[in-house]
Amino acid sequence: MILVRQEIGEVLRDFRQQKGRTLRQVASRASVALGYLSEVERGQKEASSEILASVAEALDVPISTIMREVGDRISVLEGLQTFPDVVPDDLVAEVGPELSFR
Amino acid sequence: MILVRQEIGEVLRDFRQQKGRTLRQVASRASVALGYLSEVERGQKEASSEILASVAEALDVPISTIMREVGDRISVLEGLQTFPDVVPDDLVAEVGPELSFR
Repeated sequence: MILVRQEIGEVLRDFRQQKGRTLRQVASRASVALGYLSEVERGQKEASSEILASVAEALDVPISTIMREVGDRISVLEGLQTFPDVVPDDLVAEVGPELSFR
Repeated sequence: MILVRQEIGEVLRDFRQQKGRTLRQVASRASVALGYLSEVERGQKEASSEILASVAEALDVPISTIMREVGDRISVLEGLQTFPDVVPDDLVAEVGPELSFR
C-alpha cells in the first residue's frame, strides 16, 4: 500500500537537505518539536495540515510544490510513469553516434 | 493558511461526484464510516494515509492523480498559477473571429 505520509516525509527531507538546513533549524522556525519533525520526515507520523503549512513556510517552499512532488513520486510508485529505456532517436540524431555507454 | 486537508476533501468529493457515486457507496467500498468520509470531504478531518489509499482505490483513482490535483489547486490558491484573462492569439486564429463572448 502506498502511504502518502512516507512520500511527504521524503519530499520534506529532500527540500531541507537541498537548502542545507538542519532538522533543528527547520523545527525551530516552524515551531514544531524536533522529534516530531524527524518522525514526519521518516514517514512515521502523519503531519497535520497546519504542521505541513508551517514546515513548508519554514523551508521557503510552496505547499503546492511539495504536493506536486509527492504526486510525481507516487505516480512512479504506481507505475503510471515510465522512463525511456533506450536513448530517444532524436537525441541520438542530435548528439551523434559517438554517444555510447561505455 | 492553506490547509491541505481542505483541498484533499474537495478533490475526493469532485472525483466521487464525477463518477456518480454516493458517499455511502464509496464509504462502504473503502470500509470507512460514512460520517468520517463526509468530514474528510468537507475538510474537517485529516485522512490518514491508509484511509486515503482506501478511498482512492474505492474511487478507482490513482493516489498520484489525487495528489497532483491537490497540488494544482493549492498552486492557484498560492497565486503561483495564473490563467490567461484573454483568449490566446493562436486560439483566436484557429477558431476564427466568429468566436466571441455573448
